[in-house]
Amino acid sequence: MMIVKIGGGASINLEEIVKDLAQYKQPFLVVHGANALRDSLAKKLCTTITTLESASGISSVQSDEELIDLMCMSYAGLRNKRLVELFQRHGVNAIGLSGIDGQLIRGERNAGIRVRQNGKTIMVRDFSGKPRSVNQQLLQMLLDNGYVPVITVPILDADGYAINSENDDIVALLQVACKADTVVQFIEAPGFLNNAEDSGSVIAKLTRSELAARESTAQGRFRRKLMAISRLLTTSESKVVIADGRVTNPLQRALEGQGTVIQ
Amino acid sequence: MMIVKIGGGASINLEEIVKDLAQYKQPFLVVHGANALRDSLAKKLCTTITTLESASGISSVQSDEELIDLMCMSYAGLRNKRLVELFQRHGVNAIGLSGIDGQLIRGERNAGIRVRQNGKTIMVRDFSGKPRSVNQQLLQMLLDNGYVPVITVPILDADGYAINSENDDIVALLQVACKADTVVQFIEAPGFLNNAEDSGSVIAKLTRSELAARESTAQGRFRRKLMAISRLLTTSESKVVIADGRVTNPLQRALEGQGTVIQ
Repeated sequence: MMIVKIGGGASINLEEIVKDLAQYKQPFLVVHGANALRDSLAKKLCTTITTLESASGISSVQSDEELIDLMCMSYAGLRNKRLVELFQRHGVNAIGLSGIDGQLIRGERNAGIRVRQNGKTIMVRDFSGKPRSVNQQLLQMLLDNGYVPVITVPILDADGYAINSENDDIVALLQVACKADTVVQFIEAPGFLNNAEDSGSVIAKLTRSELAARESTAQGRFRRKLMAISRLLTTSESKVVIADGRVTNPLQRALEGQGTVIQ
Repeated sequence: MMIVKIGGGASINLEEIVKDLAQYKQPFLVVHGANALRDSLAKKLCTTITTLESASGISSVQSDEELIDLMCMSYAGLRNKRLVELFQRHGVNAIGLSGIDGQLIRGERNAGIRVRQNGKTIMVRDFSGKPRSVNQQLLQMLLDNGYVPVITVPILDADGYAINSENDDIVALLQVACKADTVVQFIEAPGFLNNAEDSGSVIAKLTRSELAARESTAQGRFRRKLMAISRLLTTSESKVVIADGRVTNPLQRALEGQGTVIQ
């Protein structure tokens, strides 16, 4: 079982990824983002996206009601459906679902984020949270019947509200739920870079202990990303590939080991 | 089995409809529109919605690529997910699907619409078509496992493209597929009106033959609507209620016979 996470960057080559996946003979599921689409839609709609910086220095988008609306339009709406269409056009029977559909992904809404504002620490509560459980029955039923789930945010909180969540956390949860041995993450870079400014500085291989070492020195959002990847290495057979989503034959390259292989 | 069609008008009271449906003890599924949402989103995005008038006098929206994008955002995105959320909040395990998801609804793309333009008849081909088949396996699997499908456009054509379609035709197809004996259509009026200007002129009951008589004198879009309803009366047990979707307890009222009952 393979999980493919498709980043929401503007230069990700969806057509190439889908073409490659249509040739893949084993079961897989897809988790996708749509941040570039969300941002361009926000701009057109003159919706302000507020970034919250927590007291501990991690920044995240303020998921108010308007932002969840925007995500329903961009993630669960336009990107999800156009991606499902692309799969269908390539002969893959994809089914697009957000985490709220059939309670596919349930989560716990954040109690609040401590934010520094004008020298004071205040609590801001929005519609965001952590994914906690997967509706295994639904997921397995779809996979067993030959459907390819194409999954995105929002997810569902305990009170039945749509909440925003990190895709990395969703992937980690799904990996356990469907015992995926391989996770491929398509990003807008040739892999993990030693030096963010130098696209030639791809780290070809990372072991679990090297990942842990990097985690301890990394900061903010990148640290969270590394922590999320650590969690994907649940067994000694687990393999994570961080690969370039902008190239031709992106899956083939990733499975051949191009990008950063973490094992 | 009951099918509930929820119109996409701005004054439809979704919360009341969902609250009533949460009390309903038999299986049902939902088909919904979002035309008011689509139009307001188009306005904000400065997307022009072009109306085509066919040579035979029937007007329809030109479903170009931009319009399908808009529908993915408004129908399959914002309206579908917020409606699923509302159901979840009321304890109904809804699962939102467009017709393209898992090939739920397949259709045939229109070859082209004859349009009069500057005194000439030209053919315009867009992404619209007629629904032809339902993925019974998927629909039944979901219903058998306690999920409530919440369905909307687009649907899938034979080449894997997302196409626009009339919700009335989708409802007719679904009714046959899941042998629904009752179809409730929530609209922004107290029922079928004898005189469109007079909300007191509700036609309480219509038989199949009365419907046929009205069909022969009606025009354009309204005629198409009547024809679609005729097709819902597949057996002598079939019942269609055209009911007010703006009131409190809309389902309860509809099932008590308020609105227009066609049998």
